[in-house]
Parts: sequence; structure tokens; C-alpha cells
Amino acid sequence: MSVTAAKGFTAAGIAAGIKENGNPDLALVVNTGPRRAAAGVFTSNRVKAAPVLWSEQVLRGGALSAVILNSGGANACTGPKGFQDTHATAEKVAEVLGLGAGEVAVASTGLIGLLLPMDKLLPGVEKAAEALSEHGGEKAAIAIKTTDTVHKTAVVTRNGWTVGGMAKGAGMLAPGLATMLVVLTTDADLDSEALDKALRAATKVTFDRVDSDGCMSTNDTVLLLASGASEVTPEYAEFAEAVRTVCDDLGQQLIRDAEGASKDIKVEVVNAASEDDAVEVGRSIARNNLLKCAIHGEDPNWGRVLSAIGTTRAAFEPDRLNVAINGVWVCKDGGVGEDRDKVDMRYREVHIVADLAAGSETATIWTNDLTADYVHENSAYSS
Amino acid sequence: MSVTAAKGFTAAGIAAGIKENGNPDLALVVNTGPRRAAAGVFTSNRVKAAPVLWSEQVLRGGALSAVILNSGGANACTGPKGFQDTHATAEKVAEVLGLGAGEVAVASTGLIGLLLPMDKLLPGVEKAAEALSEHGGEKAAIAIKTTDTVHKTAVVTRNGWTVGGMAKGAGMLAPGLATMLVVLTTDADLDSEALDKALRAATKVTFDRVDSDGCMSTNDTVLLLASGASEVTPEYAEFAEAVRTVCDDLGQQLIRDAEGASKDIKVEVVNAASEDDAVEVGRSIARNNLLKCAIHGEDPNWGRVLSAIGTTRAAFEPDRLNVAINGVWVCKDGGVGEDRDKVDMRYREVHIVADLAAGSETATIWTNDLTADYVHENSAYSS
Repeated sequence: MSVTAAKGFTAAGIAAGIKENGNPDLALVVNTGPRRAAAGVFTSNRVKAAPVLWSEQVLRGGALSAVILNSGGANACTGPKGFQDTHATAEKVAEVLGLGAGEVAVASTGLIGLLLPMDKLLPGVEKAAEALSEHGGEKAAIAIKTTDTVHKTAVVTRNGWTVGGMAKGAGMLAPGLATMLVVLTTDADLDSEALDKALRAATKVTFDRVDSDGCMSTNDTVLLLASGASEVTPEYAEFAEAVRTVCDDLGQQLIRDAEGASKDIKVEVVNAASEDDAVEVGRSIARNNLLKCAIHGEDPNWGRVLSAIGTTRAAFEPDRLNVAINGVWVCKDGGVGEDRDKVDMRYREVHIVADLAAGSETATIWTNDLTADYVHENSAYSS
Repeated sequence: MSVTAAKGFTAAGIAAGIKENGNPDLALVVNTGPRRAAAGVFTSNRVKAAPVLWSEQVLRGGALSAVILNSGGANACTGPKGFQDTHATAEKVAEVLGLGAGEVAVASTGLIGLLLPMDKLLPGVEKAAEALSEHGGEKAAIAIKTTDTVHKTAVVTRNGWTVGGMAKGAGMLAPGLATMLVVLTTDADLDSEALDKALRAATKVTFDRVDSDGCMSTNDTVLLLASGASEVTPEYAEFAEAVRTVCDDLGQQLIRDAEGASKDIKVEVVNAASEDDAVEVGRSIARNNLLKCAIHGEDPNWGRVLSAIGTTRAAFEPDRLNVAINGVWVCKDGGVGEDRDKVDMRYREVHIVADLAAGSETATIWTNDLTADYVHENSAYSS
């Protein structure tokens, strides 16, 4: 399914030899039309990898015929040579498929500061083009994995049209633990403006609110391609909802596969004066290392939640704050609430509600606990 | 030495029974004059513990005769009863020493969300007052420890006058891992305005730049008391330098004793367009969990340094950034520099230089690595 669930797309995933262990490392997604509308959202990190700089430029035209993605190397902090390599990759895809390079987006993930092995990557492009198939979505999703333990795909089908996609990463768009790469496809018949609007609206409330470890990648990329092959033009609201549903599904899969995590933490901020306040408070709670350690230890440590709220600029009064952990209001009016021993934290999902008592806006941020496994994985993995 | 190195001070540290393990948990510092000038700097967390609210209020008068500090309970998020307890503690000190409660600062550290055992604390005040001594500085420093493995003191003596002090904590003022409490004393003859100016200038470049884990406490407190007993009024610049030296020394001791750390990381940002830029970049690098894991693994991962720089608003061009780790310029002009295998990371201190090539300002932030021990300590310790 994945990126080939929608009509008008082929895909492939192959082993080009970029990864030394021989695992699949090159994915190709092709829009066979009739339409080639596209939109993209990229990392807000100011240190951007060569493929991000390239793809941002390509997307200005609002059209894409193909996306080539490699794991095994981020091509970030690689200077002019790195950008040349990205360009050469797009040229190679264009040559093999009979396109212009300006219709080809490039995405990379893996170690920062290393040049890609172009002697392996370019022949890999030919091999991937030969393997293109209307059933190639799963293989493409597998080829973009790095530290992912599972490949991630999602599909929704509406009245005659479909949105599908694949993702890799154990984190988020902005910020992001490890790089997040996402390709979404649809056979709905829409122009690039509608795609762009729907994609930005969706990422803002999904990938942007998945904050596993507060670190933002140089390579994060989310692309949405439309083939028009269904010959259906849905209402914008219906389409936007479908894109958001797929993004939400993939975002949840990222959190559940976060490096070294043992808990998935849903931080729900309610009764905020504004949505921005709710997001700021949610992010501050989600990034608090002391709290993330406490959750790992199954300790409903609401004091650390209050400490995190206190570092924000959001509107609130300290003595009106309430905090619930897994349904128990352990903090009421800024002080001790219900008995913390009532909180059951045995399960993987932990639900924190922070009530700011300052308005009626809300936002939810997803994060993970901080574990010894996270430390081990990230002190061993050089990226 | 500690807070009794300067003339005109007595101190005591005793076990009042606040800590269940019977360790010392109550410290008293008394300014015997002739002057009682004082200044204070407190956590910028908006969720402030009762003793912080009390002491901020007391300090408005610019005078202090005594400071009472307890470990074993933070008295934070304890509502009106918590504030009453702080008030009662100050009243008890005042009664025992023949002072007004408005001359008594209170500081607390320990678990959040628990009321202090006043039936133990108030008798402890009497016991501490009986134990006051001109040689009590060390005992006071020992009584304020929580997870500290050693007590922390520092002293500098200049021409006829002295600045000394004690600290507890494994972190920093703002932000702070665990609470940081510091009491500094001097026998220099200065008014509260000079003390306030020198203290703010010192903390800004010392405790404020010690950022072990990015978390800010509800209780951080730094106090400076002057007795005037030396009868010497130093030049402001000389005095400010002495205060900064003591703060720097204590800040270094906090970093070296940070919870679970195996590395002390000096992040030096150079050639920034402004000091604010340098601090923002330094803090972003110091808070990057992925980098902190890499340093723990003795991996000179400069890509993670660049990723962290890229999330700031500081002035820089990505292709002009340079990064040195332990003297080796592993990143030059935003790309690969010298051979990373040349970097020797066997020792506890790690020195990262981030060259923004955007100006001539500089700032240094100290942090620690992220370790499995940090996770263990903070998933077990409920605060």
C-alpha cells in the first residue's frame, strides 16, 4: 500500500550498497500522472542538508514527477560537493525516466558530514527505475529505514480517491530526533496550492507536535504528490481531513518506534488562553528531561510538570494550575491534589493533562520517556 | 571556611529530623554586623516555592540578618499552608535571635509538593541557633546537601576583606537541574546597591551559564550578605571580580558534581555577532540530548553541534561555521574539517568551540553529558 495505494504512482525500494550492511537503502517514487502537482514542508533548522536545499528549490514550481530517497547517508554539512551530488542524483533519475531534473525531489537520511558513495548511488538509481511497480510502496518504505525497527505506512480511502504514505524516523519534523522523511501520495485531482495548504495545516498539528527528544534534524522532509488519476476533485475540507488523518497515523507510528523509548507520553494542554500558549506549554513539558526520567520510572511526578510550565511565557496563575496523570488529578490549584498512589503507570501510554485555567484553547504534544536505552543508542550511533 | 570565612558571620548545620535518614538538614547563617546589607537573585521559574516568594519580599529592604536553609523538602507547590510554614520558620529564627522576621531569608530544597515537618523544623531552629559558631561554615554547607556527593565552598581574600560562600545542587540558577542554593558572605563594607549590582553581574556569567540538563528549579536562590566587619570599602570593580570568582568556583563545583554525569563539557561560542547570540547558541548546544549522548560515548559528533546551532536565531551563515572538539577543528566552513579520529575524548573535561564567524563576541556555557546514570538517578528520585 503505502505510496502506491493511490492510483497513478509506482515505487521501488532496493539495496544500492550505500549501507555497508547490504540492507535496502534507495527508494524511488514516481508520479505517472496525469497530473504532477506537489507540495513540501521541510526542516526549519537553518543548517539544511543538500537534498533539502535542492528539494525546496524544486518545489517552488509546485510540481514533482519523482522522488528519490536514500538512507545510509544524510548528505548534510557536506559543502558544495554534497550539493553537486544531490544535483547529480536528480539528473540521473531524470535521465533514466525521461524527465527534467527540476521535476525530481531528493531526500537523504543517515550520518551527517559524510559524502554519499555516488559510485553506488547512481547505478542504484537505474536498478530502482527497473524495479518500479504499482505494488512497490512497501519496498520503498523499507528502503528508507535507518534506526527504525519497523517500516511505517498509512492509507485512507474516501469517496473514489485515496491518500497514502510512508515515513521513516523516530521523531518529528520540527524539531526531530533523527531525520523524519515522509512521502504522501494521492490520486485526488488537486492543484499544488490546495496540496500546500492541506499539507501545512496537517503537519502543524501532527508531525510538528511529535517531539521525541527536542532535537531538530537537518534533513526533515514531508512531500505530498497528486496524480489526479482518480479524476475526482474532493472538497478542500474533506481532503485536508484525509491528509491530516494519514499524517496523524504516521506521527503516532514514529512515536511508538522512538529510539530507546519505553513510554509514549501524550501531553494535553487544556484551558489555555491561546493555541500558541498551549503548544508552548506542551513542548516545555515534553522536553523536560527530569520529567521524562520520572515517567520512565513510573513516577507520577507532577512537581516536574509544574516546573516545566513555570518556564514558559504562557498566561496562567501558579495557584490555579491543575495536572492529571492517567486520569488522576494529582495537582489541584497549584498544590497537592488526589493521592498520587492512585496513578496506574504500568502501561506504555501515559496521558498528562495540564489545565492552565486561563482560557479555552488546547493542544496535544506527543513525546517519549528518557531511558538508558536512548542514551546507549545515541552514544553508539554516530550521526 | 565557607560562609564564615568573612568576619562578622556565624553559622551552624544540624540534623533536625526533616530528612528521614537522619543526615544534617538545617543550616543557619547569621550576620553579626555591624552592617546587614544584602542582595539576592532567584529562579526565573514562574512557579516559585514559598521560601522564594518570602525571600524575594524580604530582600526588597536590602537587608538581612540571617538566612535559614533546609534540605529534605522544597516547600514548593504547597499552597497557602506552605507559605505560612515559611513565615513561621522566619518568625522562629527571629524570636530565637532577637530579630524581626523581615530580616530573615528562607531557602528550601528537596521534594516538591510536600509540606515540611514543622514539628521537627521549628525545634531544629533552636538547636541550630545554639550551635552557631564562627567556625560553622562547613557544617552549614553540609546541611544543605541533597543528591550532592560533596559539599561545596569557596573563598577569596583580597586586601583586608573576604568573600566566601557555600552552594548545593547539581545544576544552576536558571535553568537548574535540582535546586541550587548559594549563600555568599563578605566582610567588605558595602551597601545593598553595590551588592546587588555585583551579584547580578556575577551570576549572569557564572551560575546562569551552568546548564547541566536544561531544567529550571522552583527554588533556586543566591544570596549575598555583607557585614562590613573588615571596615574596608573596596573599589566596586575589585569587589565585583571577587564575587564573580567565588561564583565561578562554586559553579564549576556544581558541574563536576552533576547527577550521573561522566563528562564536564565546556561549550565556548566565539566570533558571535552579539553576546546574546553567543549565549543562545551555547545554550542550544548544551541542551542537545543527542550531542550529550554522543559526548558520553566519546564520539566527536560535530554534526549534532551544527544541528543545534541551526535551531537558533543567531547571526551566522551555515557554510562559514567551524567547530573544534578538544582542539581539533573537526568542522570547517560548515563541512568536514580535520580528521575526527585525532580527537582525544578520554578525559572528563570536553571542550567544544563553536566559531560563528559573524562577529567578535563570546560566551561560555558549561554542561554535562547525558548518561544512563542520569536516567537512573532521576527516574528513582521523586522530587
